Amino acid sequence: VNVAVIGLGLIGGSLVRALAAHGHRVIGYDQGAGTREEARALAKAVTAPRVADPSARPVSGSASAEGWTVADSLTEAVAEAEVAVLAVPLPALPAVLSELTGFRGLITDVTSVKVPVRDLMGDERFVGGHPMAGKETSGFLASDPSLFDGCAWVLALEPGRTALGDWLTLAALITDLGARVVPATAAEHDAAVAAVSHVPHLLAAALTSTGTASPLAAALGAGSFRDGTRVAATRPELIAAMCGGNAAAVAPALDAVLAALAELRLALDDADPVAALSSLLAPAVAARRAWPPAPGAPESLPAEVGALLDLGRRGGWVTAIAEDRQSLTALRPITDRNSL
Amino acid sequence: VNVAVIGLGLIGGSLVRALAAHGHRVIGYDQGAGTREEARALAKAVTAPRVADPSARPVSGSASAEGWTVADSLTEAVAEAEVAVLAVPLPALPAVLSELTGFRGLITDVTSVKVPVRDLMGDERFVGGHPMAGKETSGFLASDPSLFDGCAWVLALEPGRTALGDWLTLAALITDLGARVVPATAAEHDAAVAAVSHVPHLLAAALTSTGTASPLAAALGAGSFRDGTRVAATRPELIAAMCGGNAAAVAPALDAVLAALAELRLALDDADPVAALSSLLAPAVAARRAWPPAPGAPESLPAEVGALLDLGRRGGWVTAIAEDRQSLTALRPITDRNSL
Repeated sequence: VNVAVIGLGLIGGSLVRALAAHGHRVIGYDQGAGTREEARALAKAVTAPRVADPSARPVSGSASAEGWTVADSLTEAVAEAEVAVLAVPLPALPAVLSELTGFRGLITDVTSVKVPVRDLMGDERFVGGHPMAGKETSGFLASDPSLFDGCAWVLALEPGRTALGDWLTLAALITDLGARVVPATAAEHDAAVAAVSHVPHLLAAALTSTGTASPLAAALGAGSFRDGTRVAATRPELIAAMCGGNAAAVAPALDAVLAALAELRLALDDADPVAALSSLLAPAVAARRAWPPAPGAPESLPAEVGALLDLGRRGGWVTAIAEDRQSLTALRPITDRNSL
Repeated sequence: VNVAVIGLGLIGGSLVRALAAHGHRVIGYDQGAGTREEARALAKAVTAPRVADPSARPVSGSASAEGWTVADSLTEAVAEAEVAVLAVPLPALPAVLSELTGFRGLITDVTSVKVPVRDLMGDERFVGGHPMAGKETSGFLASDPSLFDGCAWVLALEPGRTALGDWLTLAALITDLGARVVPATAAEHDAAVAAVSHVPHLLAAALTSTGTASPLAAALGAGSFRDGTRVAATRPELIAAMCGGNAAAVAPALDAVLAALAELRLALDDADPVAALSSLLAPAVAARRAWPPAPGAPESLPAEVGALLDLGRRGGWVTAIAEDRQSLTALRPITDRNSL
């Protein structure tokens, strides 16, 4: 597939490298001239014969399959592309979309919210995406072609709106990189990531504030404090953009945590707080021990919107798309562990 | 020093081994006959000449310094002890104390709350302790003589109640094992560990409950969910005993987190949630990046109750006690980083 990747940060850069390594024709573009140079320099290093390394395999035949090119403009990047991946932050999407008005190929994005992006779109051929891959670092120099190995990559699927053929094209491309393709509506996605990704950042920030208010407490913090606050070291504007950009879904997810904490708070006032806490905590402990859920055996599913959304709702994912696009291979969690 | 360790679980077992390795005369006791046998078997293995290992150094001279003995009763264990370490859980303390009525030596404990233990005591020579060392595992077979290397070990110091000489005896013993001895009153200790150790377990449990309520969300959970919920896999009765046993301090610490979360929740409803969150999150992010605080240069302090408690309140700790017991060496965090 002929793919253009717009934005060569951690995700875009890793995607260019992963797609090129899998034999796709990839052209990248970034608005930063310095980033374009970094990407070009690495492309040259990858495709040049490795004369200094006697154990390197000959690259004459595979050079084009492993390399990528870097365009000097967005228009040049998408000129021959079948798929354009917009790997730019949410606030930059409208400007990029306005430059893509003539583009007739398939568009996807990689931002961490899907309802706001869906609502930006007009009649483009669009399928929203969200690779759940991250690192502490950012920028092209942090990119890693194996970043998507085993990671969950949500592809949004809106009944009556998303073209199933386009969805399957992207799913085939992404499963090929080793990612788990998770089908979900944009709203389902935003609620899920609010619960497991955005709210944890708010809890970490709140715990940091209270745990470091006293120097004595800060000095006594150990493993549980370290783990519970780790993501609070993320840049504040990134946490704010992520949570604030998904505020409609984060608010009810945080309310759910506050309700669970209010129950635990009440138990502390119980005449027998140990017993009261014990019975409240048991289901959470069982759930944490059953997480991450173990997948069952691979199964074949028809390539239908209803079957795909049902798969996602049960915690399953797609691992491969059949050549004829009529069926797909899926994994889903073993029910009796997951129903704990 | 002649030390008896009562209870040979992870902490007691590790302490027996660490003290023996530092040349103290140690006698252990556990009410479980199986545990006593495990401890005896390891003592034999440590003190026996290692004939199978040609690189082993001769042990004839050092055998007694590295070994320990295991008594068959609590009375036998403490018969010649100057210090008795009660390494049993809080609920077992009253029974052990009632068996120690004739003991005239110094008593300490290792439980994770200090006010309830202080309130159990009559006129014993007692200094409460809490080594902040833990592992996922438990029992003598999980013990590790290096468990206390670099860990914070609170020694409770109550003005007008604790004998400073007894406090210094224990501090010398414990700093010798490589631990950071933190002086604090029992109430200060309980509030601090509520904030950085007990509340994180409740947050982890609440986050697990809400994050696994939907199989889709559970399938999308990644690093921030994994870290934020890790300690929720602890046995529920341990979390309940820890938090419920310190309910008086955990309740206000949880209230502080709930207040911080309520502010963040309000920001989500702001007309510009990204900006509102950003300004709320910035201090927490700065605090997390400054944690753990970097210690300044070693300094000498007089061995006085006021100076010790002040050191603890500023996030400092004792690293060594002078031979003459008149002064001590302390480290405290560099103020300009800690005041962030």
